Parts: sequence; C-alpha cells; structure tokens
Amino acid sequence: MKATIYEGKKTFSVVEKEVEDPASDEVRIKVAYSGVCGTDVHIYHGMMDKRVSIPVTIGHEMSGTIDAIGDGVSGFSVGQKVVVRPLDDRGVKPSDKGFNHICEDLKFIGIDSPGSMQQYWNVPAFTLHKLKDETDLKLAALIEPLSVAVHDVRLSELQADETAVVLGGGPIGLLVAMVAKETGAKVIVSEVNENRIAKAKELGLNAVNPLKLDLVEYVKEQTEGRRADVVFEVAGVQPALDVMTEVAGIRGRILMVAIHGQKKEIDLFKFFWKELKLIGARVYEKEDYERAIELITKNELPFEEMITDVQPLSNIQNVFENIDNNPDGMKVLMDCQA
Amino acid sequence: MKATIYEGKKTFSVVEKEVEDPASDEVRIKVAYSGVCGTDVHIYHGMMDKRVSIPVTIGHEMSGTIDAIGDGVSGFSVGQKVVVRPLDDRGVKPSDKGFNHICEDLKFIGIDSPGSMQQYWNVPAFTLHKLKDETDLKLAALIEPLSVAVHDVRLSELQADETAVVLGGGPIGLLVAMVAKETGAKVIVSEVNENRIAKAKELGLNAVNPLKLDLVEYVKEQTEGRRADVVFEVAGVQPALDVMTEVAGIRGRILMVAIHGQKKEIDLFKFFWKELKLIGARVYEKEDYERAIELITKNELPFEEMITDVQPLSNIQNVFENIDNNPDGMKVLMDCQA
Repeated sequence: MKATIYEGKKTFSVVEKEVEDPASDEVRIKVAYSGVCGTDVHIYHGMMDKRVSIPVTIGHEMSGTIDAIGDGVSGFSVGQKVVVRPLDDRGVKPSDKGFNHICEDLKFIGIDSPGSMQQYWNVPAFTLHKLKDETDLKLAALIEPLSVAVHDVRLSELQADETAVVLGGGPIGLLVAMVAKETGAKVIVSEVNENRIAKAKELGLNAVNPLKLDLVEYVKEQTEGRRADVVFEVAGVQPALDVMTEVAGIRGRILMVAIHGQKKEIDLFKFFWKELKLIGARVYEKEDYERAIELITKNELPFEEMITDVQPLSNIQNVFENIDNNPDGMKVLMDCQA
Repeated sequence: MKATIYEGKKTFSVVEKEVEDPASDEVRIKVAYSGVCGTDVHIYHGMMDKRVSIPVTIGHEMSGTIDAIGDGVSGFSVGQKVVVRPLDDRGVKPSDKGFNHICEDLKFIGIDSPGSMQQYWNVPAFTLHKLKDETDLKLAALIEPLSVAVHDVRLSELQADETAVVLGGGPIGLLVAMVAKETGAKVIVSEVNENRIAKAKELGLNAVNPLKLDLVEYVKEQTEGRRADVVFEVAGVQPALDVMTEVAGIRGRILMVAIHGQKKEIDLFKFFWKELKLIGARVYEKEDYERAIELITKNELPFEEMITDVQPLSNIQNVFENIDNNPDGMKVLMDCQA
C-alpha cells in the first residue's frame, strides 16, 4: 500500500508499506479521499512539530469503505461506507463533565496518532459513523470540516429570524455560512480576498469586502439598526477581533472559531455595554457528525463547489506547496487510491 | 431641603434649595439613604466629566418613602417605602430587541440626570419598586448593588452542584459571592487585600489570597480537578483576566462584571480549547430588582456587615476623600435626612 509521511521541514515522502491487520477493537479502512485541513498546513509549516511524532502520516478529513474488521468489533461489514470522527476520548475523566469531545486527555487522530493520508488506515471502531450507500465519497470527505461548521452554528443558537455575520471566507467560514443560511437566518460573509468573495457568491452567499465598505454600517442597514445577532470569528486576525464587538448587536453571540495562538486585545467594555457573549467552539460532538452526514447525503447545498482540486497521494508535496502559493483555493482532496 | 452638588475637580458642595413639586408622571421621594457606588467615585475623580452635566446631584443606590405624587400617577400612596431602579428606558427602540435595561438610548438616572444624594428627589413613577413596611431602609439602600449581583448570578446560570470563583472582593464581588452561595453552589473569593479577605470571612465566605497560594491549583483541589464552573471577573485588573481563563474548567462560564475602559489581552486559545463562554453583564432587569428586594426583606444574609459607614449629607466631601484613602471599606451610606 501507499502511505504519505510527514518528515518535518516542509517535507512529505510517499512510501510503499505492508497493509496491516486491524487490532481487535479496530477496523481497517480503504481510504477514498482525505482532505487537506488548515491544521495539516500548520503541521507542514512545522508549527506543531512538538506535538506530532515525526515521521508520521497525517490527515483526518476523510471518507472510505471498511476493508477488514477486528475480532472484537461488531455491527460493521466489509464494503460499508464510513467516515471517522477522529476524536480518541478514551482518556475521559469525571472532571471533563461529560464533554468527551474536548476532554483534557483527548487524542486527535491524525495529529496525535497516524492519520488518513494513506491507502489503508486502521482506526478504533468507536470512531466510525456509517454513511448511506448512495453517499458520494468525494463529498463525504467534507463531513469532518462540515461538522465543525454544524457545531459552531448549533452552539450559536442562531434562529431563522436572525442575522449572522461570518468574519472570514476560507473553507470553514464558507461552510459555517452555508450551514447558518440553511437555518433560515440572513447571512453576511466578510472577506478581504476578492477571489474568495467570488467563490462565496458562487455558493449563493452574500459576501462583502470590509476594506471597500464600512462593515458595521452595512450590517446596520441590513438589520434596521439591530446589527448582528450572531458573529462567527473565523478569520483569526486582529481586524476581525476589533470589528466583532462592533458589528454585534445587543446580547449578540460571538462564536470564537478561529484559533488564536497568542493573547489578543479584546474590547471587553463592549461585552459589558451590550451584554455580548463570546462562545468558544472546538471540533464537534456526535450529533454534529450525524447532522453533517445528513446534509452531505441530501446534497442540497453547493458542497461540490467547495472542492477545488483532487490530487493523487503521490502529489502530496506539490499539493502543500501549492496551498501556500494559492490563498484563493478552497478544499483540496487527496485521492488515496490513485 | 439639603442637596449635594458635584462641582467637578473632586469637589462637592452642599446647598439649601426649594423642594420641587413632582411633574405629572413623577413622584417626590423623601430619600432615606443613598449609597456611594464605584461609579460615583469615578465621577468624583473626574473620569466622567464629559457625561455628567456639572454642576449636578449624583447618586443612584437609594431607599426612601413617597412624599408627593404627580397628577398622572396612580397606585402609590404617600409614606410608601420604595426604591428606584434608576434606568430611564423611554428611548427604547425595536433594534434593542426588548432588552430595555441596556437599550442603546438608555439614560442612567443619577448619572445622565440628577440623582439621590439630596433630601428630596423627583423621579418618574415607572422607576419605582415598592418595599414592604417591614423592610429596613438602611439595608434597602443595598438593593441597587445587590440587583447587579443577582443579575450576574442569574446570567451565569450557576447551579447548586457547581463551583464559582469570584475574582475581586470589593462590594460588588462580595455581594456576587453572597448571592452565588445562596444558590447552594460552592464559592471561592479571590482577593489580594487582607482586610477585604477578613471581611469576606466575616460574611461567611471562603476567601483566599492569590498572591499567597496558586489559585488554579487551589480550585482544582477543591473541585476534584474540574476547576470552576463559573468565574465572576469583578476585579478589573490584568492578573484577573489572565487567571480567569486558567481557573475555568471545561465549558466554564466567565461573567464579565468589571468595567474595562480599554482593550485588554485575553487568552482566546483557552476559549477555543475548553469551549469557554464569556458573558457580559450590565446593571439589572426588573426581575433582578424583585429578587434583591426579597433577599433584603427576608434579611437572612449578612447584609448589615456590608455597610461600613453611615454619614450625613453634609459630610459628602469627607466621605469621598476617605474612600480614596481606605480601600478596605465596603459600602458607605449617606443619611439623606441627617
């Protein structure tokens, strides 16, 4: 079988290795597609070298079919289409209060243990979610990032008569916007990259450039002065942190989706003055995966437009180099059988 | 009648003036007591000279009895004990979404219009809450700040089986701690001033000094590793902002009670990692006042210990000068009839 290996120093190798039998509590998956996540790009950039065990296969946004089943596993059959929810929560403790998905000792499969950017992948059976036979495996590789968006929108408690502003029109931002729009809410995407704005419009979203108009005034106009009921901060930059507290209306909820590695300046006075809420959101829970699977299987949203490239495993080095050079691209999938 | 006047430049005067008849929609209150709020101290320091209309009578934490009733007012009688909820929300708009207490055009009575540090005070009748005949008017002057604490604890959704950490043991911090404890929750007050720690202990609270122990480790010990379910940030200083995201456990709620006039550095990564919530809280709603009135009337909590001084109106200049020199004091009341 073919496997890709992150070797450190912005380098991937592609190797041939033996297909391994699954352990008793595992299944072996024949990986169909594995999407490139922003986290994978961080790993490629060496930002997570302390966390990953180099050399290692990364990847966690995937779809596939069951290829072999461990002795102790029941309820699955070979050929079944599946996705992996890559959260190993076996270290959960009472002090995690039942929030297994963010438990203190969580291991993220594909970061803390080997991932999906290989032809066959052994994973614990409890991580699997079954797909329908008719689910498209290419689209199914979007289930993991889509679950992030579903989780964010669910925690925001966005209602159909509300307005959401999404700061940042990258892959997660646009998925959040699509899921938010699906609730019936009015959605405004704020993005500075014109090619990403064009992509958002292609997806049927209302997208504006905050460098070309006054975002707060625009949102006030669109909401009869209410401003945003919900703001999703998906940009991860200081101007987004500055505008999020301005664009949110009274009792507005701000979802912190972006990962800010360093302490950042926040206008706490606005939190007091308008009784704003800041809500941290990380990964997803079981129900978010089920909802994302439902959305992908129904396929009524323009998910296909999110996939801007599909490349064979052997091209992995080029894929990561190209992502660095092309901030306009959305989701790139590795075809793990090509 | 006697009235105090803030003249700017850290100066109050005390004047004799005519008692005025209430307007049609007003009542005249014979003010019993008027507490000194942190906001009043800010005004005295000149920090709000752009907002207040100097010369002006300030004050909004009060109790009294009805002395005269405007033509258009019904449902009240002379001699009735009352407190004022000093929020003039007559400018409320649909874009305020029904959150009258923080509506965009809110006028705060005692800041944006004349306040209670005088012998008689005319106020719109809609601001009144009736007290029981047996309610102690001295304690009743605590209803306004107690309502702040009730509001904060209500928005935190603190449960009886949870642990709350209150950062800051000033008057509002200790009232928050008392109300939080009343819910049945375990409460830990963190305060650096030893005299305030002693006062907290006098009130039956568990109070610790974060300069003398590791607050995070202490809270972990007290909670079997869960850390705090709710954190009230009432200190308003950077070390409190730094520790609040550490001491909060998974899905912890952080109530932003302190007023931070400038942007501050916050560990947003912790919000993401533990799915924390930051909840801005400002003043109170009608139901918070009713709950505070109930607590004061029942008088089962050590509210009397919160009142550390009572002074006649004529001493106002001394009172404010002494507050500056005595960070240990809790609530000082002006006796508005003395």
